[in-house]
Amino acid sequence: MKLFWSSRSPFVRKVMIAAHELGLADRLECVPVVVALAQPNDAVMAHNPLNKIPTLITDDGQTLFESGLICEYLDALAGGERLFPTGPARWPALRWHALGTGLLEILILWRSERMRPDGQRSDAVLAALGRKAAATLALLEQEAAAVAAAPVTIGPVALGAAFGYLDFRFTDLPWRDGRPRLAAWYATFAQRPSMQATAPHD
Amino acid sequence: MKLFWSSRSPFVRKVMIAAHELGLADRLECVPVVVALAQPNDAVMAHNPLNKIPTLITDDGQTLFESGLICEYLDALAGGERLFPTGPARWPALRWHALGTGLLEILILWRSERMRPDGQRSDAVLAALGRKAAATLALLEQEAAAVAAAPVTIGPVALGAAFGYLDFRFTDLPWRDGRPRLAAWYATFAQRPSMQATAPHD
Repeated sequence: MKLFWSSRSPFVRKVMIAAHELGLADRLECVPVVVALAQPNDAVMAHNPLNKIPTLITDDGQTLFESGLICEYLDALAGGERLFPTGPARWPALRWHALGTGLLEILILWRSERMRPDGQRSDAVLAALGRKAAATLALLEQEAAAVAAAPVTIGPVALGAAFGYLDFRFTDLPWRDGRPRLAAWYATFAQRPSMQATAPHD
Repeated sequence: MKLFWSSRSPFVRKVMIAAHELGLADRLECVPVVVALAQPNDAVMAHNPLNKIPTLITDDGQTLFESGLICEYLDALAGGERLFPTGPARWPALRWHALGTGLLEILILWRSERMRPDGQRSDAVLAALGRKAAATLALLEQEAAAVAAAPVTIGPVALGAAFGYLDFRFTDLPWRDGRPRLAAWYATFAQRPSMQATAPHD
């Protein structure tokens, strides 16, 4: 399979963490690309008109995109129901996945708003994004013991990708302060081989 | 169940179309709220720190968010595997869901960029969003016959919500021009009772 990939994309990282957890990482041929909100990449656009990575081209020629969908496809390839459990365990896993992915979306908008040229930035947007990120971290601190006790599903995988991105792109944000349980969970999770093998870099 | 709801949100509409298709619409108590990118809503934030709607509070007190996850939860409540099939039929359904949802995300960013105050708008961002929307519509025109032949899964539901939003918020964009198959599919789909019951309005 071919994966449009970047070492800097946290959504790509989510897929790569999943692939390592599932023992499928060596089945992925990673094609490095650069995508940006304001600058569509022709090679990516030819397969995914949303111009987003990760984009997967499967061995039978299907093009799949959206990081959660790619993770679920890889889970099925590996036999199924490991990262995406069925039954009642499915909802907390997918809810944490939605929280981790939603936090990443906030962080990416926040960073891109920060990087706009002078005069094009909106203080109201910056403040709203900061408040939402803080509220999401506060909720996750409350749930950190439950995350730590849960099996490694797509939920913790998405949270791992989100905290890795905080450490990579928001070094000025002391997100561990006042959130000792979350910090402890991530310190342990970050030691997993799937996390170690996928550390972001410029 | 309680659903934080707005008649204007296409992601809420996706959930409501799904609920009508599944015969569950009368199980949802819709709570009208207003959310905006730059203006967090305290009532929503108390349940969903991402400040997004739809947000669902289930009968057993779980809070679920992210429109796709809520749709999958409703599908399971209704017996399962109708809007989210299992087996090989799952991937085209989820891929169209990703295309419809991704198109909506582009349209919402595009609209909010258009509505920024003078001087805060980025021409590069506006151009990139327009190009991605056009490319997504072009791909869907190629696939319109396959969409029309497929069962009504979460894929067509998401596409229906996206085209409904185009007609609601982008009246200046003649998206049917040059896309006869897509226009014909939507003309038929828009007649479904689930679509008729959920038309957006200000």
